[in-house]
Amino acid sequence: MSPSEELTEIFRTFPGVGPRQAKRFVYHLLTRPRAGVERIAALIKLLPSDMASCADCRRYFAKTGKSELCSICNSSHRDQTQLAVVCRDVDLEALEKSGTFKGRYFVLGGTVPILDETPEKRVRLTDLEKLVKHLAEKGLAEIILATNASPEGDHTADVVRKSLAVLSEKHDLKISTLGRGLSTGTEIEYADSDTIEHALKNRESK
Amino acid sequence: MSPSEELTEIFRTFPGVGPRQAKRFVYHLLTRPRAGVERIAALIKLLPSDMASCADCRRYFAKTGKSELCSICNSSHRDQTQLAVVCRDVDLEALEKSGTFKGRYFVLGGTVPILDETPEKRVRLTDLEKLVKHLAEKGLAEIILATNASPEGDHTADVVRKSLAVLSEKHDLKISTLGRGLSTGTEIEYADSDTIEHALKNRESK
Amino acid sequence: MSPSEELTEIFRTFPGVGPRQAKRFVYHLLTRPRAGVERIAALIKLLPSDMASCADCRRYFAKTGKSELCSICNSSHRDQTQLAVVCRDVDLEALEKSGTFKGRYFVLGGTVPILDETPEKRVRLTDLEKLVKHLAEKGLAEIILATNASPEGDHTADVVRKSLAVLSEKHDLKISTLGRGLSTGTEIEYADSDTIEHALKNRESK
Amino acid sequence: MSPSEELTEIFRTFPGVGPRQAKRFVYHLLTRPRAGVERIAALIKLLPSDMASCADCRRYFAKTGKSELCSICNSSHRDQTQLAVVCRDVDLEALEKSGTFKGRYFVLGGTVPILDETPEKRVRLTDLEKLVKHLAEKGLAEIILATNASPEGDHTADVVRKSLAVLSEKHDLKISTLGRGLSTGTEIEYADSDTIEHALKNRESK
Repeated sequence: MSPSEELTEIFRTFPGVGPRQAKRFVYHLLTRPRAGVERIAALIKLLPSDMASCADCRRYFAKTGKSELCSICNSSHRDQTQLAVVCRDVDLEALEKSGTFKGRYFVLGGTVPILDETPEKRVRLTDLEKLVKHLAEKGLAEIILATNASPEGDHTADVVRKSLAVLSEKHDLKISTLGRGLSTGTEIEYADSDTIEHALKNRESK
Repeated sequence: MSPSEELTEIFRTFPGVGPRQAKRFVYHLLTRPRAGVERIAALIKLLPSDMASCADCRRYFAKTGKSELCSICNSSHRDQTQLAVVCRDVDLEALEKSGTFKGRYFVLGGTVPILDETPEKRVRLTDLEKLVKHLAEKGLAEIILATNASPEGDHTADVVRKSLAVLSEKHDLKISTLGRGLSTGTEIEYADSDTIEHALKNRESK
Repeated sequence: MSPSEELTEIFRTFPGVGPRQAKRFVYHLLTRPRAGVERIAALIKLLPSDMASCADCRRYFAKTGKSELCSICNSSHRDQTQLAVVCRDVDLEALEKSGTFKGRYFVLGGTVPILDETPEKRVRLTDLEKLVKHLAEKGLAEIILATNASPEGDHTADVVRKSLAVLSEKHDLKISTLGRGLSTGTEIEYADSDTIEHALKNRESK
Repeated sequence: MSPSEELTEIFRTFPGVGPRQAKRFVYHLLTRPRAGVERIAALIKLLPSDMASCADCRRYFAKTGKSELCSICNSSHRDQTQLAVVCRDVDLEALEKSGTFKGRYFVLGGTVPILDETPEKRVRLTDLEKLVKHLAEKGLAEIILATNASPEGDHTADVVRKSLAVLSEKHDLKISTLGRGLSTGTEIEYADSDTIEHALKNRESK
């Protein structure tokens, strides 16, 4: 296999990239000036040492100083009573972008497929337990399982809930999940019964 | 304009039908046996006298006896303390299908566009007020504005809320809207900030 | 089954209409003024006597006088040496709209599925043979099988070709199919090999 | 800008990649083992020296020996009387995959937008002229302009045709374009008039 073929194969493993697009990426690199291509190679090589996984929440952050913690875990302005557990960095970003959540985060690093028998290999349960123990002593009161509203998201939440059962009992921690209901744009006519049931249960008075 | 052209024009006004499909409908009718076509014509002609608008909730129902009320408004098994106000018959059907709501309904007959200045021509505000007055004397406690999670749905809910302001004050009626949050299938990564905000606010503990 | 339910079932059999849209059609009719609904019923009832199938080409046309022929078959300006055989009225319309074809038409009334064993029940082979015999005496020179570029379209063309084999031999009629190649908007990168092969074979010099 | 941000910006310039996907690529790289990431960097760095642009047809090929020509230009089995001029490497691949074309190729390196005033900066007109001169002495008889069936593809073909006008006259070279007609899957009902016109003109007899 030539370097260009090997590179095509690798690009195919990138999220959302098919065989045709992978090949286009290689052609695209071929048409760039050599200096630009070398810059890309250098940046990719640099990436693992440039980014670090935060020792507390496990999300990736740009390592600038010597701190092992990301800016959120380092901040003294975050609400230490709430911990949002998310599956991936992108979920954390979505929550931050909403500007509503002011607490701490933990990134599981993935989801647990429904029939998976070794969930501890899919998500960072041990790291999460360590962080919860640590935060429980600093006033943690609630853990919010912020997973997708899908069977796999629900299952991942269940797995985490079980893994935290003893700890949450011991430290009297509330465990909650994100509220279900009509999301922006949902039309009642096309909503499934589950969504309508939650929307009725969670109805809001002004 | 020939009958087939006039019919094509009329089919174009049917919901979700474009010019090409309207023409296909006419060709489709042409290929059916004459007896079948006459049956369709007869059924359509019969429709207005076969279906009636319920005197209470205004939804359409198949007129079987002499009752002016639909089966839901006629039923003694419905919870008379709750009234769900929906825009269209299809929304009522979606709520019924979910099997969660046991109260009464009212069908507004449409939505109110945001800049519309005569909402009373778009939705049945007077009929709704009459029904609310009537039900208030029979124990009504809450009115649920079950509109779509869209700007037009929100606006319609606002219009209804204002129209019921005096009555709800007088009879001490709670007015609520459907709960917002993650609907089935929502991925956090792609959820808008508004949805995430509601999902955090409405979070659920088991 | 109530009239509205029966009508919903019938609308479901209309081309491209699903169960939800069929129900919406019924609600749509219910919201129209009674006079409008009666007009629709009258038009549908009128349709079979208003439209006739042309005695020559079999397409539907608005019957105005006593002629059994449509305006194309009646016209003295059409090229009598060419006959385009199409599957449906809509195909005839597409060819007419292109303004390129000046000959006569015949509408088969459908397509022949690949494993179908009684093609004569699917398409009007006997009527076509009659018309070809008739036109052969008036100078017909070529029959163009204008079927879709799909397996079913190809198969239908094969069936017609066989059915006309003896006649075309006897009267020395050329039988052709529509040219294959790049259609408007085709990108070579995404074209299938069959299309590219035809595009190379049919290449054009200015 | 941190390396990860710079890399995200660069991935956004890859064909068909949006801002969200670009970020996902970076996260994807972060989750790969460090050795794998270094392999990707190494392959990308290697790419410009691994691949060469063929001295004759200008397409990219994996440089294995010292030859400046790709396997097609080097082959003694290709038909030297035909030259297919394509816009991009992917178009050449599509033609090769069809297995129909046995001649030589030339890759223009792009297309010419309709209002572009310096086409010679968009496509390799000078290189093409050189190759045509060279091949004309070796028996070249026809140049096939294999551009997309789009306004930009047509315009690019026109530009090339003009650029080759003198040469083709001098050496008596035929210049053709790919045949237009129904491409695989085209339904006559939905075909545009231009496609139907070509399909009628290019009709095929068995």
